[in-house]
Amino acid sequence: MRIEEDCIGKLKIEDNALYGIHSKRAAENFPISKERVHPLIIESLIQIKKAAAQANYEAGTLTEVKFAAISDACAELVQGHYENAFIVPAIQGGAGTSSNMSVNEVIAHFANRKAKRNIVHPNDDVNQSQSTNDTFPTAGKMAMLKSLPELTGALRTLIQTMLKKAFEFNTVIKVARTQLQDAVPTTLGRSFHAYHSLFKRDLRRLEYAAESLKEVNLGGTAIGTGINASDIYQQEVIPFLKHETDLDLSLASDLIDATQNCDVFVEFSGALKSLAVDLSKVSNDLRLLASGPQAGFNELRLPRKQAGSSIMPGKVNPVIPEVVNQVAFEVVGNDVTVTMAAEAGQLELNAFEPIMFKRILESEEHLTQAIKTLCTNCISEIKANEDKCAADVEKSVVTATILTPYLGYEKTTSLVKRAIAENTSVKKLLKQEGLLDNSKINELFSKESLIHQHSSEKIGNLA
Amino acid sequence: MRIEEDCIGKLKIEDNALYGIHSKRAAENFPISKERVHPLIIESLIQIKKAAAQANYEAGTLTEVKFAAISDACAELVQGHYENAFIVPAIQGGAGTSSNMSVNEVIAHFANRKAKRNIVHPNDDVNQSQSTNDTFPTAGKMAMLKSLPELTGALRTLIQTMLKKAFEFNTVIKVARTQLQDAVPTTLGRSFHAYHSLFKRDLRRLEYAAESLKEVNLGGTAIGTGINASDIYQQEVIPFLKHETDLDLSLASDLIDATQNCDVFVEFSGALKSLAVDLSKVSNDLRLLASGPQAGFNELRLPRKQAGSSIMPGKVNPVIPEVVNQVAFEVVGNDVTVTMAAEAGQLELNAFEPIMFKRILESEEHLTQAIKTLCTNCISEIKANEDKCAADVEKSVVTATILTPYLGYEKTTSLVKRAIAENTSVKKLLKQEGLLDNSKINELFSKESLIHQHSSEKIGNLA
Amino acid sequence: MRIEEDCIGKLKIEDNALYGIHSKRAAENFPISKERVHPLIIESLIQIKKAAAQANYEAGTLTEVKFAAISDACAELVQGHYENAFIVPAIQGGAGTSSNMSVNEVIAHFANRKAKRNIVHPNDDVNQSQSTNDTFPTAGKMAMLKSLPELTGALRTLIQTMLKKAFEFNTVIKVARTQLQDAVPTTLGRSFHAYHSLFKRDLRRLEYAAESLKEVNLGGTAIGTGINASDIYQQEVIPFLKHETDLDLSLASDLIDATQNCDVFVEFSGALKSLAVDLSKVSNDLRLLASGPQAGFNELRLPRKQAGSSIMPGKVNPVIPEVVNQVAFEVVGNDVTVTMAAEAGQLELNAFEPIMFKRILESEEHLTQAIKTLCTNCISEIKANEDKCAADVEKSVVTATILTPYLGYEKTTSLVKRAIAENTSVKKLLKQEGLLDNSKINELFSKESLIHQHSSEKIGNLA
Amino acid sequence: MRIEEDCIGKLKIEDNALYGIHSKRAAENFPISKERVHPLIIESLIQIKKAAAQANYEAGTLTEVKFAAISDACAELVQGHYENAFIVPAIQGGAGTSSNMSVNEVIAHFANRKAKRNIVHPNDDVNQSQSTNDTFPTAGKMAMLKSLPELTGALRTLIQTMLKKAFEFNTVIKVARTQLQDAVPTTLGRSFHAYHSLFKRDLRRLEYAAESLKEVNLGGTAIGTGINASDIYQQEVIPFLKHETDLDLSLASDLIDATQNCDVFVEFSGALKSLAVDLSKVSNDLRLLASGPQAGFNELRLPRKQAGSSIMPGKVNPVIPEVVNQVAFEVVGNDVTVTMAAEAGQLELNAFEPIMFKRILESEEHLTQAIKTLCTNCISEIKANEDKCAADVEKSVVTATILTPYLGYEKTTSLVKRAIAENTSVKKLLKQEGLLDNSKINELFSKESLIHQHSSEKIGNLA
Repeated sequence: MRIEEDCIGKLKIEDNALYGIHSKRAAENFPISKERVHPLIIESLIQIKKAAAQANYEAGTLTEVKFAAISDACAELVQGHYENAFIVPAIQGGAGTSSNMSVNEVIAHFANRKAKRNIVHPNDDVNQSQSTNDTFPTAGKMAMLKSLPELTGALRTLIQTMLKKAFEFNTVIKVARTQLQDAVPTTLGRSFHAYHSLFKRDLRRLEYAAESLKEVNLGGTAIGTGINASDIYQQEVIPFLKHETDLDLSLASDLIDATQNCDVFVEFSGALKSLAVDLSKVSNDLRLLASGPQAGFNELRLPRKQAGSSIMPGKVNPVIPEVVNQVAFEVVGNDVTVTMAAEAGQLELNAFEPIMFKRILESEEHLTQAIKTLCTNCISEIKANEDKCAADVEKSVVTATILTPYLGYEKTTSLVKRAIAENTSVKKLLKQEGLLDNSKINELFSKESLIHQHSSEKIGNLA
Repeated sequence: MRIEEDCIGKLKIEDNALYGIHSKRAAENFPISKERVHPLIIESLIQIKKAAAQANYEAGTLTEVKFAAISDACAELVQGHYENAFIVPAIQGGAGTSSNMSVNEVIAHFANRKAKRNIVHPNDDVNQSQSTNDTFPTAGKMAMLKSLPELTGALRTLIQTMLKKAFEFNTVIKVARTQLQDAVPTTLGRSFHAYHSLFKRDLRRLEYAAESLKEVNLGGTAIGTGINASDIYQQEVIPFLKHETDLDLSLASDLIDATQNCDVFVEFSGALKSLAVDLSKVSNDLRLLASGPQAGFNELRLPRKQAGSSIMPGKVNPVIPEVVNQVAFEVVGNDVTVTMAAEAGQLELNAFEPIMFKRILESEEHLTQAIKTLCTNCISEIKANEDKCAADVEKSVVTATILTPYLGYEKTTSLVKRAIAENTSVKKLLKQEGLLDNSKINELFSKESLIHQHSSEKIGNLA
Repeated sequence: MRIEEDCIGKLKIEDNALYGIHSKRAAENFPISKERVHPLIIESLIQIKKAAAQANYEAGTLTEVKFAAISDACAELVQGHYENAFIVPAIQGGAGTSSNMSVNEVIAHFANRKAKRNIVHPNDDVNQSQSTNDTFPTAGKMAMLKSLPELTGALRTLIQTMLKKAFEFNTVIKVARTQLQDAVPTTLGRSFHAYHSLFKRDLRRLEYAAESLKEVNLGGTAIGTGINASDIYQQEVIPFLKHETDLDLSLASDLIDATQNCDVFVEFSGALKSLAVDLSKVSNDLRLLASGPQAGFNELRLPRKQAGSSIMPGKVNPVIPEVVNQVAFEVVGNDVTVTMAAEAGQLELNAFEPIMFKRILESEEHLTQAIKTLCTNCISEIKANEDKCAADVEKSVVTATILTPYLGYEKTTSLVKRAIAENTSVKKLLKQEGLLDNSKINELFSKESLIHQHSSEKIGNLA
Repeated sequence: MRIEEDCIGKLKIEDNALYGIHSKRAAENFPISKERVHPLIIESLIQIKKAAAQANYEAGTLTEVKFAAISDACAELVQGHYENAFIVPAIQGGAGTSSNMSVNEVIAHFANRKAKRNIVHPNDDVNQSQSTNDTFPTAGKMAMLKSLPELTGALRTLIQTMLKKAFEFNTVIKVARTQLQDAVPTTLGRSFHAYHSLFKRDLRRLEYAAESLKEVNLGGTAIGTGINASDIYQQEVIPFLKHETDLDLSLASDLIDATQNCDVFVEFSGALKSLAVDLSKVSNDLRLLASGPQAGFNELRLPRKQAGSSIMPGKVNPVIPEVVNQVAFEVVGNDVTVTMAAEAGQLELNAFEPIMFKRILESEEHLTQAIKTLCTNCISEIKANEDKCAADVEKSVVTATILTPYLGYEKTTSLVKRAIAENTSVKKLLKQEGLLDNSKINELFSKESLIHQHSSEKIGNLA
């Protein structure tokens, strides 16, 4: 064991450990869960350190030797092969200081170990011109932005799959239900087109909210005044970081504000929550439309993914929508956590970013995975039960509305009441009573007539 | 207009107004909504003032004349005929000070007006030995306790009505669904009995949480040390208040704690939230079981309460469960508000009790009304659609499980698959294939056999 | 009493009532609270009815006489003098049907009463080409859009006031605190400028989210297929409605989707929630900075708005920020309610729009009022306690950071430790120890040096 | 690879895997996160399987050989050395079926592997008389109950530590603040005693809510009717399970209800949320009281646990309370997730128990750890800054209230105003003006007088 010392005192550290005293103290102080700081935050901090070293070198405040040592260390560490070196817990006090300190330490140790002498100091060199208060929120935003393409990619695939299904089910006539009561005829294609339209809005919301994440406070240091950062550094660090990452970052216009306020995390979490709510609504619909099969709606046949019961032979459950629902409930809960944490910020800093970052990254990842399994293991293989859909239309009274022009409201109402009371169809009663001749009845009850496609509805054009 | 003055300055007050400068300032400072302090909080504050006057008189710190004047004024005001005098908005800053001040002012004005001279001072006399910080939370708890019997009364009626329905539907055999998929046979009576059991727990939770509300900090004055309150007052005021109200109040054991912490409101709101969740679940079930009628589950017939559509003749919707769902969503939201407000308390006081009280009283009242309309306008008149329930059992495969001992798991599974594929019933297939003789089939498919009533299930005994 | 009849049966209605059987049933079925449908929803429905009558007249499906009668009635009713006619409770089952029916009824009664004969039928004429399912969500969105300018207006004023204060406090040097611990020097102006920047984002978010509310499904009727609406009506009704209201409405591209999905309400409520969180954060800061006065931070002097205690002479509390906090907690709770209600939508309709509309309109209004009172009764009159701010800087160790280049990190650290231990200032110790000559000390401890204004910070340009 | 088959089809399984096809399918269907089913749920399911085997053996439906094989396998697996065998993800669709199936599979494979022949069938034998729908919720409750003693133990230690500190700080006189404004004198001991009292209620709430978890539905099988379970099994399985675990479980009185309703999880999560809110409030207080040190309240000295900043030499932050706040925000979010999941249950089952269990167990564990670190790393080592506390009392006006009986309200008010305006103390002004003789002043401003200890307050007796 080697001994390290800080302003608190001395501490023993495992001999070969890349981490140091600050990481170790964090692990001891915050033993809340086994989960460590998210790898994407670590990766982003390393990228920040590399860009900062470059900017400091440009500014003439870091020697070439130190710059090279830091830069090389970052280049190697960023590849992710040393994740055991980053032992700081994800849930941590200290506003991210432990996260930042830990990356400083590991880079310095790594560089010095390679150089076989002490070239680089974690604070004076690796952390030069920086503070946790600008590096940590910047890294948090970067991590969220890095997680986003996989989420929006999955969402785009879901949107396309919904559209494909909309066309596939375009002619499947079925009963529309409002307030779970039989309403009017529609098509199954319309339902899936509506889901398509819905998720397009979610995509738009996510992309809009992500714009706010691109404004970072890197260069503001402790509270946004940029204390201890040179002008050259402030101008150069973000361009270097953009080059390093391909993220379209920019400097916030008010750094004091950008250092203390967490509204953009609330905004982004809100967009994730909207998506979650919509996924849950659609999953509810799928489970309902696939209910039964015999004593339920039985309009959809979800792909069979696993045995549903040991006790009930042959039972198969809508397990994929069910898992999506649960992720949605998680994400709504996470949004409440983010909301409370953002509200709790005080004066020049919000100390509760670690939990916000943890929860938002969790929401992004779980939503991504939920959408993928929903798309692959459910939506893309859904089949329509066309016979059941058609039979329901035939026997139900939802067709009655189109009769009003021919029979009048009063007569139509009485037909509806009789049809329900006798559990028969309006069409049968019409024929029984000879109220209209058979060809008219057949015309009115043709698919085309029942679907009632307005000129305004051009599904193909909406995509 | 008359002029009144306080430590801030002078203000014009309407000549005949019973309220004074503190009420007026509150109305100007907090124009958030038109809603005023809840009448039950006003009533409770008046009762506190009366009890306090009595206790102060006993302690010898209030003259008999003043005591009589205050006591008489309270006795008249508590009857509720002067509600226009209490103009303070429900949503108010100041930790309830405006509420307390307003009651002090009105009582003093009222007493002095009757006496035609200035006998009573709002602060020195009406508020003697008190602080907002003990009277206001005490009044809040009293208001919640006063609202409770109507809620628990409605809940008890609901519980009894569910039990009545459980007996009524005791022999209605139907398909049970797990994860919305047909599972095994059950009875409709069991479903309603489960609701009965569920709401009994809600009643138990409410009554338990209400116990915590009965401990009050009256006598603790500003922060719980009882500064400016005599020992005699501290011993006498709660007994007098109990006598005045029939509420079973007691003095909290740690008054510092009882003055600053709002956990009992979180606890009580949590019990209301549990009830809301359960009402929502049951409402969801009712709407689902009544769905269709022709293209839905159609097992229940909810009473028809109003026309459901202008466009769709004869459509009637499950409007009563729908309104219950919405109240439930409100109450869950209210619980989040209460939670955040409680968390925001600082040091010796929580300044955010006004919003907690408003939301909790709203939750209590809306739940009461929701339960009443649910019970009267829905549950008590629900009819079973026995034919549909029975037909579903017959045609579905849920009966298959009981065949396993006779046919084996393999053969049963293949029967189930065929029944679903051919949209026929297991029973028909059995007969078709002659796998069992008809008397055995009839025995197995008898109601008694299908319902599978265990010896442990004695519905009648559970009530 | 007159008798009216619907598909449920007969009901007595007060003779002179403008409302009819559907309104009356709603009042009986939904006695949840005394609050009625929001006046802006009623107003919007009347405007919809007028525009619809025009469009139907253009389409040739409504006679000129009926059109004129409906149009005249709407023009008179929209002025708001008949609010007693609209008795339907805000919290209602039935997906808004009662709201829509009630407006149909009142318009028809009003028109027929004026004409002294039965010209207009509530459903066939007033509701022609419409369904609750397109009029009610459209009216809800309109009401939210109508409430918005007052909110954004108040927010703009707040933003400007914050900027004004930022300039006013531009030279007030003070201690910045991160994690509530003394950090580095800053200015009070920066704090208010950060609030200015923060609320500009809230304005941007509100305006963006409002865009989504402008897409309406009017013309989609029951489920979005436009059943019972003519092509001409579908093309004309929204232009007429825009003319009537000056709202920039447009027809949603997918009417099935727009009828069933409530994500835009979640989105809008989310933007309101973000604003609430930010108002709460700032209110927390204000209360903290004004704490004490003697045993607190005591940097700000909030305007004295009302006496703070009857027991503690001279005490004045931060009542305005306190009421803002409470509104914020309300709005966060409302957002949870909206979220749950949106998630609960099923298939072709979400039956829970009434509670969403109620809660969102409440959030808009309460936030508007909260911002107004915050701006008028607090921010605009806030004074800085410059002496206390300056004294804290002088005595605290936050000035130490700038010494590092002169004394080195080690020596600086030991100075800091001593200053804290001896409860003295770094500056005094510096002079005591003669570590730097007096002119250097005075230079380093000058305001300009301490504030550390970077070239990147140009407060004046940020507005 | 070996091949297994189920009603869906065939699947390749790793040759040596103890798990089988159902586990494998779950891993493929639910790739939401890397977290697997909680070890305590696995452990509890194994215990259930063992008890069930015993009960089935007693009932004569399981042979002695099979019973012994299952029992031995369970005894070995329960020790936790085979956790890699349980690959089912924590977030799973299917209402827990995968969890149950996975335990059935692993036990069967393990038993058969030991026996070197196929003795035991996962469904027919291991799962005999059981369903996921009774074993999974029972296991969930067991896991929560097993986690509880560590939580309540930590909480008890916290309660005792608070009491110890209450005595330690019993004579530290300080300013009490209501609404963050200086109010009246108090002692630091009272503050810690209030925390002591607060957390005692949390302990009481947890223990009460845990009672509801002890009622399980084991024996109810698929929906609570006990289909496929013998009477003997139903009577014996819970006694065997109690014997196995020392948990005080009992059979729910209404098994239909106990199978479908999740209100007890809402109840338990609510108790956890109350605790979280209280921990957050206290953490807020601690951070506030330790703020500064020089430009803050500076009444408490929290133990220094780690360096607070790289940029600001000597800065140390309240990292322990900060991490507790964040856990609290997590737990409140988790409660919303649990609430939504419970509300979403439908008819005979709630399919969303997996997410409820995950979140509740997380809340329990994180709260446990948060309390431990709060107690060990913060509360137990907190020091009072007595000098600062005393100086604040001396200079502030909070002492004025006790002067009212001597000087009258008017004179006192004017003294208070002057003291604040001149930033001096009431005591100094009193002496300056010679309003009372020095001995009286000294008496009134003695600690005993200032603290104003009522006879009702007997700190020592409250413990």
